[in-house]
Amino acid sequence: MAKELKNLTKRSESYSQWYNELVVKADMAEQSDVRGCMVIKPYGYAIWEKMQRTLDDMFKATGVQNAYFPLLIPKSFLSREAEHVEGFAKECAVVTHYRLKTNEEGNGVVVDPAAKLEEELIIRPTSETIIWNTYKNWIQSYRDLPILCNQWCNVMRWEMRTRLFLRTAEFLWQEGHTAHATKEEAEERAKQMLKVYAEFAEKYMAVPVMQGVKSETERFAGALDTYTIEALMQDGKALQSGTSHFLGQNFGKAFNVQFINQENKLEYAWATSWGVSTRLMGALIMTHSDDNGLVLPPALAPIQVVIVPIYKSKEQLGEIDAKVEGIVSKLRAMGVSVKYDNADNKRPGFKFADYELKGVPVRLVMGGRDLENNTVEVMRRDTLEKETRTCDGLEEYVKALLDEIQENIFAKAKAYRDAHIFECDDYEDFKARVKDGGFFLCHWDGTAETEAKIKEDTQATIRCVPFDCEQTPGVDMVSGKPAKYRVLIARSY
Amino acid sequence: MAKELKNLTKRSESYSQWYNELVVKADMAEQSDVRGCMVIKPYGYAIWEKMQRTLDDMFKATGVQNAYFPLLIPKSFLSREAEHVEGFAKECAVVTHYRLKTNEEGNGVVVDPAAKLEEELIIRPTSETIIWNTYKNWIQSYRDLPILCNQWCNVMRWEMRTRLFLRTAEFLWQEGHTAHATKEEAEERAKQMLKVYAEFAEKYMAVPVMQGVKSETERFAGALDTYTIEALMQDGKALQSGTSHFLGQNFGKAFNVQFINQENKLEYAWATSWGVSTRLMGALIMTHSDDNGLVLPPALAPIQVVIVPIYKSKEQLGEIDAKVEGIVSKLRAMGVSVKYDNADNKRPGFKFADYELKGVPVRLVMGGRDLENNTVEVMRRDTLEKETRTCDGLEEYVKALLDEIQENIFAKAKAYRDAHIFECDDYEDFKARVKDGGFFLCHWDGTAETEAKIKEDTQATIRCVPFDCEQTPGVDMVSGKPAKYRVLIARSY
Repeated sequence: MAKELKNLTKRSESYSQWYNELVVKADMAEQSDVRGCMVIKPYGYAIWEKMQRTLDDMFKATGVQNAYFPLLIPKSFLSREAEHVEGFAKECAVVTHYRLKTNEEGNGVVVDPAAKLEEELIIRPTSETIIWNTYKNWIQSYRDLPILCNQWCNVMRWEMRTRLFLRTAEFLWQEGHTAHATKEEAEERAKQMLKVYAEFAEKYMAVPVMQGVKSETERFAGALDTYTIEALMQDGKALQSGTSHFLGQNFGKAFNVQFINQENKLEYAWATSWGVSTRLMGALIMTHSDDNGLVLPPALAPIQVVIVPIYKSKEQLGEIDAKVEGIVSKLRAMGVSVKYDNADNKRPGFKFADYELKGVPVRLVMGGRDLENNTVEVMRRDTLEKETRTCDGLEEYVKALLDEIQENIFAKAKAYRDAHIFECDDYEDFKARVKDGGFFLCHWDGTAETEAKIKEDTQATIRCVPFDCEQTPGVDMVSGKPAKYRVLIARSY
Repeated sequence: MAKELKNLTKRSESYSQWYNELVVKADMAEQSDVRGCMVIKPYGYAIWEKMQRTLDDMFKATGVQNAYFPLLIPKSFLSREAEHVEGFAKECAVVTHYRLKTNEEGNGVVVDPAAKLEEELIIRPTSETIIWNTYKNWIQSYRDLPILCNQWCNVMRWEMRTRLFLRTAEFLWQEGHTAHATKEEAEERAKQMLKVYAEFAEKYMAVPVMQGVKSETERFAGALDTYTIEALMQDGKALQSGTSHFLGQNFGKAFNVQFINQENKLEYAWATSWGVSTRLMGALIMTHSDDNGLVLPPALAPIQVVIVPIYKSKEQLGEIDAKVEGIVSKLRAMGVSVKYDNADNKRPGFKFADYELKGVPVRLVMGGRDLENNTVEVMRRDTLEKETRTCDGLEEYVKALLDEIQENIFAKAKAYRDAHIFECDDYEDFKARVKDGGFFLCHWDGTAETEAKIKEDTQATIRCVPFDCEQTPGVDMVSGKPAKYRVLIARSY
C-alpha cells in the first residue's frame, strides 16, 4: 500500500482524528483560509450532487417546487418572531457596509465609512423570516394554498468550534418552507417530509435512523414541534441528520400572513419548514467507513466500479485495454458508473490504496494471466473480499454485487445500531454506561428539569421521543416521578 | 382574456416597462424587501433549473467537475491582484461583525461591538481570489494539472440600479476556474467554454449570439483576454450573455501558485475563468416574448404542452378526462412535459390567457364537439396559430411541432438580429442611427481614445471584435486612422 495513503489514524486510536484525516485524505473537503468555512472538493461534491439529485426528485414527487430567496435578511426581520431571534440572531455574519476604498498608503483597501447601511443585513442562518415576508404577498385566499417551496442554498451560522461537514460556519443545505390552510395539513406535511428524509437515509445512504419528535428544549427556535431523524455513529454518538418542523401560525402571525378561509373568515397561515445539509456527508462517512478509508454505498458513489490493469509491457496493456473496453461499455449501458484507470504514472499498489481510501464499492483487476484465462479479480470494498471470476456474465454479476453491497452495509450499520440500543431504568447505571456511547431508552417525566440534570451530569441529551417504539408507562429514572413513555438519550455531535 | 392578465404594457409603448411587468406577471421573479435582491419564483426557477442541468451536462462532457468554495473572502485577498481589486472591491457587501445582541430596550437586536472581525470579509463578487488561494495547495507538479472546477453559487455586487435578472445585487451563476500547465492549453480552454456557451444559447435558448473578444477597456478585471457572446434584444440593445476569460499567470502570481513543469522548472500556473448567470433568464425573456407574454423555447419550457378541457357538465368533463389521460401518458412516455389543467375554479378564458402569458409552447383544447369528432384544437404559442386536428397520431404531431417551434423561434430571432447588423463607415451616420439600436460593424483603430469618444458621444460601446466575420482593413470612422478590423458596437444592457 502506498505510504502516504496508509498512515490513516485507526478508529480505535482516535475516532475523531480518524474522521478529520479521512475527510481530507479521501479528497472530500478541506478547511479554507476563511475561519470555519470549508472547501468541498470535487470528489466530495460529486457525492453531495448525487444526494441532492435524489432528494430533489423525492421532494418533487410530493408536489414541492424549487425557488430562490435572498441571501441577506434585514436585521429587524429576525426580531419579529421572539423565539426565532433568540435561537438565530446571536451568532451570525453581519453586513454593515457596501463599499471598500483604497487606503491612504494606496496599497490595500479599507471599509468606506461613508458606505454604512441604514439597517444591517444578516447572512441567512435559515430563511423562515425572509420567506414568510415574501409569502405575505402570495397568499390571499385558501385557493392560494398550499405553497410548497424548497431552496437549495448556502447558509451561515457563526460556530465557534467547527469540523468539516459536521459543523461549519457556512454550509450547504435545502430548506423547504410550506404554507397551509389548516393545522392538520401542516402537521401532516411536517411528518411526511421526515419520512422522506428517513427513506433517503436508509435506502440511499444505507444509514439506519430513529424517527421521533424533539423535547421542547431541543425544538427549532419558533417551532411547535420538531421531528428528527437520529443516526448512531461508530463511536456511539448520535448524529441529528435531518429535521422537519411544524411551525404552527408563529411565522404567519409574525409576518401578518392572513388568508380568507373556506368559511370566508380571515385566518393566519400554517407553516412547516424542513432541512438536511452537508452534515449528511459526515453521517455517511462516519457510519460505514473503516481504517482503510471510506466505504460508500453504491447508490451514492461517484465511481461505482474501478478497473485497474496490471501489465508487463505496453503491448500487454493494449490487450487489456481492448478487453476492458467491452466490460466498461456493457457496465455503462447497465447504468453503472465505471472508471478504467490505466494511467501509467502510478503503480497498481498506489491505485489500490487510493480507491480503497475513496471507498469505490467494487474494484476489478485484470492482469496477464487473467487475459489468458478470461478472468478478472473482483474485490468488494465493504468486506475487502477478493475472488477471481470468469469474464462471462461479469457485468450482471457486478451489477448484482453492487446491490448486495448496498444491502450489506445497511444491514451491518443496522446490526451495530440495534446492538447499541439499551433500555435503562437506573440513573447510576445510566451515568456509568452512557459515556461509552449508544442509544439509551429511558423513562422521562416530561420536565425540562430532569432533562437539564441529565445533560449536566453526563453531557447526554434527549434526542427524541421515538416513533415506532412500543411505549409503556414507567418511572423517570432521575426524578422518580411517573413517566408516560421512554425517550432516546445519547451523547451527540 | 382575463382582465388582470391582459393589461401588459405593449413593447411599442415601453419596452422596459413591458419587460418589468412581464417578469412579475409571468411568475418568473419579483423584487424582495432586500435592496436589489430578487426572489426567483417557482416558475422562473424551473427554467433556471433546466438551464443549469443542460449546461452542467455540457461542462462535464468537457471534463469539468463541480466543487464548492467559501462565500466569504478575506478583504486582503482582493488586493493581491491589482486590476482585480479595482474592478471588484469597490461595490461589495462587507461583513464586519459576527454577533448581534439584544438592545437596551429589550425589543430588538443590535450589532455587538465586541464581535468585530479582525479582518473584514467580503461576500464574493466572483471567486478567483479564494479559489486560487486554494489551488495553491493542490498544485505542485504538471501532473496535478489541469484542474477543471466549476461551482454553481450565489454572488453579490452592490449595484446601484437593479433590474430583475438583468442586474441584481445578488445573482445566481456558475463560475468555472481552471488551472493549466501551458499558456496554449489555458487559451484553448477559454475559447472552448465560449463555444459551449454559444452552443447552449443557440441550441437550447434559441438565442443567436455573436462570439468575439473584448477590447482591453471592456475586459474582466485581471484578464489578458475576455471572450464574450453578445445577443441582440428586440429593442436593439446588446446583452452580454456569457464571458470566458484567459487570465494568463496573473492569479498564479498573485497567489504564488507554482508547479514543476515537464522541464523540471518552477513555473506559475495558467488560468481561465468563465461564467453565465441568471442574466440568461433576461436574455431568454427579451429575445422571444411578445405583447401577450412569454414565448419559451420548448427545450427549456417547464411545461411544454398544456391541455385545457371545455365542458358543459361534470359528466362531460369525466369523458374528456378519460380521453385526455391517454394523450397525457403517451406524451409523457415520449419525454414531453405536459400539464392537464382541469381545475374547475378558473374559466377556460383565464387559463388560456395565463398559459399564453407563461409562454407554454403548445396548448391543446378539447371540448364536447372534439369529443364527438375525435379531434382537438392545437395552438402554438410562437405564432398563436390554431388548428383543429384528429387525435390519431396527435402525440407524434405535437412532438414534431415542439421541434418546429424551437427552430422557428431561433430562425425568427436570427432573422431579426441579422436584419439589424449594419456596416457603417461614417461617424455622423453612426451617431444618428445607433440610438435606434442594432449591431454596428465599424472599423476601429484599436485605441482606447476613440473607444471612449464613441461611448461619450453615443453611450454605445465596443461589444467585441467578432469572430467568424470577414475582416478587411479600413479607416477608423472617428479618428480617420488606419484600422485592421471592424468591431461590433452597440448600446447595451
